[in-house]
Amino acid sequence: MSRVSGGERSRTVIAQGTFDVLHPGHVHYLEEAASMGDELIVIVARKTNVDHKQAPICPANQRREVVDALEAVDQAILGHESDIFAPIERIDPDVIALGHDQHHDPAAIEAELDARGIQCAVERASAREPADEDELLSTRLIIDRILERRG
Amino acid sequence: MSRVSGGERSRTVIAQGTFDVLHPGHVHYLEEAASMGDELIVIVARKTNVDHKQAPICPANQRREVVDALEAVDQAILGHESDIFAPIERIDPDVIALGHDQHHDPAAIEAELDARGIQCAVERASAREPADEDELLSTRLIIDRILERRG
Repeated sequence: MSRVSGGERSRTVIAQGTFDVLHPGHVHYLEEAASMGDELIVIVARKTNVDHKQAPICPANQRREVVDALEAVDQAILGHESDIFAPIERIDPDVIALGHDQHHDPAAIEAELDARGIQCAVERASAREPADEDELLSTRLIIDRILERRG
Repeated sequence: MSRVSGGERSRTVIAQGTFDVLHPGHVHYLEEAASMGDELIVIVARKTNVDHKQAPICPANQRREVVDALEAVDQAILGHESDIFAPIERIDPDVIALGHDQHHDPAAIEAELDARGIQCAVERASAREPADEDELLSTRLIIDRILERRG
């Protein structure tokens, strides 16, 4: 793991998600995750990792590239095809930051980390406060609006 | 205008667009625009500025926020309601970077800049080379895919 100036060990944070159509809720999540440490690595879900909602519209590498271009993000990588914990084991982070609306159970994640000998904190990011009443703060809402206006 | 270290005048670049659903083509355009100077200001079109294609799906401030979160972008602002040259006159940039597929005529832009006494270069960014054959490098292609899969 890298060292920051002064010789102290830097804190690596992992965030993860699908990031199909980027919106300010994603930006808020990733900026808050970045603030939990010194380096933010984002694991972008492959289509095969997404089993709790419809398959993403944009290809995995396209979603990864856009996330990687964000100022808050040091590195964006694609998830493992089948074992979502594989990249976490390899990166050995200090913190895993969950999005405010992600369905994961922190206790189940902690148990799996424990079983694999990964010592890290599991934190949940806050929800973004809507700034305007017409905001579309989820990919689903954006897609619904597209279907309503153009379908 | 700001100064960079060493006392030399910094070069301000303006890029502009709608940025309705962010994709790697936008990222390429803005990274190339940033490389044309020291500071990149992006003018995000309001709905009233978009007359050559369908109205954007996402609200203006939402689109502005996402663009502002990109590493290549120093500042993202909303366009003027009616006079698209008003913010350019105020910012007084060194370069205006046009996207490779933007419909503007550089000669017409140069004439208008000249009429307003704004001295700046008008450059056109290159197209992004597709990295994967399944990429969706325009908001229109992403919306078409959404209508095809979910409509």
